[in-house]
Amino acid sequence: MDLKHYIIDIVKKARVASFEIARIDTATKNNALIETAIELEKRTQEIMSENAKDIAVGVEKGLSSAMIDRLKIDEAMVKKMANVLREVVTLPDPVGEITDMIVRPSGIKVGKMRVPIGVICIIYESRPNVTIDAASLCIKSGNAVILRGGSEAINSNKILTSIMSQVCSQAGLPSDCIQIISTTDRNAIKELLIQDKYIDLVIPRGGKGLIKTVVENSKVPVIKHYDGNCHLYVDKDANLKMAEDVAINAKTQRPGVCNAIETLLVHSDIADKYLRSLLPKLKEKSVEIRGCERTLKIDSKIFAATEDDWYKEYLDLILAVKIVDNIEDAIAHIAKYGSNHTDAIVTENYTSAMKFLQEVNSSCVLVNASTRFSDGGEFGMGCEIGISTDKLHARGPMGLKELTTQKFIVFGSGQIRTSK
Amino acid sequence: MDLKHYIIDIVKKARVASFEIARIDTATKNNALIETAIELEKRTQEIMSENAKDIAVGVEKGLSSAMIDRLKIDEAMVKKMANVLREVVTLPDPVGEITDMIVRPSGIKVGKMRVPIGVICIIYESRPNVTIDAASLCIKSGNAVILRGGSEAINSNKILTSIMSQVCSQAGLPSDCIQIISTTDRNAIKELLIQDKYIDLVIPRGGKGLIKTVVENSKVPVIKHYDGNCHLYVDKDANLKMAEDVAINAKTQRPGVCNAIETLLVHSDIADKYLRSLLPKLKEKSVEIRGCERTLKIDSKIFAATEDDWYKEYLDLILAVKIVDNIEDAIAHIAKYGSNHTDAIVTENYTSAMKFLQEVNSSCVLVNASTRFSDGGEFGMGCEIGISTDKLHARGPMGLKELTTQKFIVFGSGQIRTSK
Repeated sequence: MDLKHYIIDIVKKARVASFEIARIDTATKNNALIETAIELEKRTQEIMSENAKDIAVGVEKGLSSAMIDRLKIDEAMVKKMANVLREVVTLPDPVGEITDMIVRPSGIKVGKMRVPIGVICIIYESRPNVTIDAASLCIKSGNAVILRGGSEAINSNKILTSIMSQVCSQAGLPSDCIQIISTTDRNAIKELLIQDKYIDLVIPRGGKGLIKTVVENSKVPVIKHYDGNCHLYVDKDANLKMAEDVAINAKTQRPGVCNAIETLLVHSDIADKYLRSLLPKLKEKSVEIRGCERTLKIDSKIFAATEDDWYKEYLDLILAVKIVDNIEDAIAHIAKYGSNHTDAIVTENYTSAMKFLQEVNSSCVLVNASTRFSDGGEFGMGCEIGISTDKLHARGPMGLKELTTQKFIVFGSGQIRTSK
Repeated sequence: MDLKHYIIDIVKKARVASFEIARIDTATKNNALIETAIELEKRTQEIMSENAKDIAVGVEKGLSSAMIDRLKIDEAMVKKMANVLREVVTLPDPVGEITDMIVRPSGIKVGKMRVPIGVICIIYESRPNVTIDAASLCIKSGNAVILRGGSEAINSNKILTSIMSQVCSQAGLPSDCIQIISTTDRNAIKELLIQDKYIDLVIPRGGKGLIKTVVENSKVPVIKHYDGNCHLYVDKDANLKMAEDVAINAKTQRPGVCNAIETLLVHSDIADKYLRSLLPKLKEKSVEIRGCERTLKIDSKIFAATEDDWYKEYLDLILAVKIVDNIEDAIAHIAKYGSNHTDAIVTENYTSAMKFLQEVNSSCVLVNASTRFSDGGEFGMGCEIGISTDKLHARGPMGLKELTTQKFIVFGSGQIRTSK
């Protein structure tokens, strides 16, 4: 079978499975996830030996140790995947939820019912545990899922999918509700992206190159996660101790992730006092500071920030610092350079807090809390399938609810329409 | 200025205006809409004389009388547009609404805030009143709008936009929040559709050709309205009198619109009794019947339906009729041939009603009511910007709420994250 027919066969099977899984009750879905967790743990050695093949190829290809590290599945990682499955079981099933019911003058009762999206395709790189995260969220939310992982993790992804698919099928789910693209041919992605008749949503997870390829080639709607160029703005009315704690946490607690801050904006009225106390503490934690001209006047031993710095997602122990004259300038800076991901303000001023919340156009806006909270787990959604930096359908962390959609439903008692 | 620069200039201005209008309070927006209504009425003669130019060109070009009719603006139509503006004023402003607020174990309060989408581009054909409908909904929901109407209505659209834009600007809205593409160059659409940096959403309204062009060329997310191939399924447990009233209303009350039914599915147990009573009544109302083989056995004087008929949106006094053996077959027929628009069941059986509601994958599913109710006005949304047959972001009639999106907001009191 050539690639085109291989892909068409998969997407057609997924479409049929999507109709079936949409009707499966919560208990059956939960049971399938629990059985998968048990089976994964039972077959830890088999998973690790398949993973070892990927590692061997990776080492041969000269992948960086960080890459190898992300690829590796040890016993703890299997345990972690099993626990994700158990966590998803505890989350409420969004399918079937009826909301916004109103009675109209005609007598009809109109509201919305939450339903699965249908067929979701996840295109991802590296970490094989995404296979389990993504599949479990799609299944619990009543969707069929097509997985396309990175070629470097192909053996790991295949064994994980094979186990999950087999267990789910035995537990009463349609056998094609979880499928993996088992070829590493790069053209498979382009073939998938034109199947808008059979795939309802594509979620790319990975580097910018992958996301760009998907966006540029997809006829299927895409929800993507571009940069996390996150900002913290310290207002003139900030509690400076709080602002220090939040800045240090948001920059240093885990600098390599998307919800860490990259730029600190500081109101000029309190900049001198605040930065003289904060900058040494950041340096102690090995943070490199790149400041605007006014910041350089406070501390001449830091680097000068260039225009480019304001756009950068360092994902590293580097922080750009800019002094602004008012909250409007802070908001304008975020609008110009930000990536609509996550931004925070520290202030005691009510009007400033509300203004920042309303006017900063990001998927998550926080007052007096670290940007690091912008996360499905911290928001109570269990694990997340990604963080959307798009504006339509879903913004911010995407959990089970974001993998569903709503349709209108009407309860009538024989009404016919009389108005034209 | 060449076309490319002309379009870029417009979309950049729209982006700036979108930041400004997002912050404008409800009273100012409402006042601008009311002033527009007054001004439209005041300048009725001017509007009609601009419209007369379009009509003259249309007649010269040999447009059908139906087309000319749709193009025409008389005093009653101006009054109608003014009333749409006044109706939009009465609708609640969705911007700023905070929902789903929960307190997390960390102490942060997480919820969602409703915000405008940003820049919305409406690409439409023929009826110039869409200009006012679309612009008023976009403005009220805090968005900047770019209008691209059909070339046959260019003078009408220009005068309407010019009046509205001028009044809104005087009333305190950003002057670029309503812009029209004033060239009729067809390439303008393609130039617009690649401006994904400046346009957040494209809504095409018009024939299939237009929608196809938009979908195929757009880098901007599109919410579209394809066919309305709507079904009515009459269950074995239906109240047959009710089922007759609903079928007649859904087919004949206004056959040319998308929420009229095209196919009637009838359970075999009651088909004989039901169709023997219904078909003569439909024929009296000049409905042409195209039946399946079993329907032909009940009434040999009707036409035989071909496979093609099940796919067709007649938008005319034609009805395809099929007898099915059970509700599963009815649902399967709708899944195969339907267009995910609007489908209804008539039944007194609770389990059948719930099954149909849950399993029919359309933007609107009704029990014991005419499909003709699938409409923004009937659902209490005021006028609508369209009916989405897509699954993501918005399904079914789209009103003000559907022209907004939600971001996460967090109220903290200095929380920092400790878990990795």
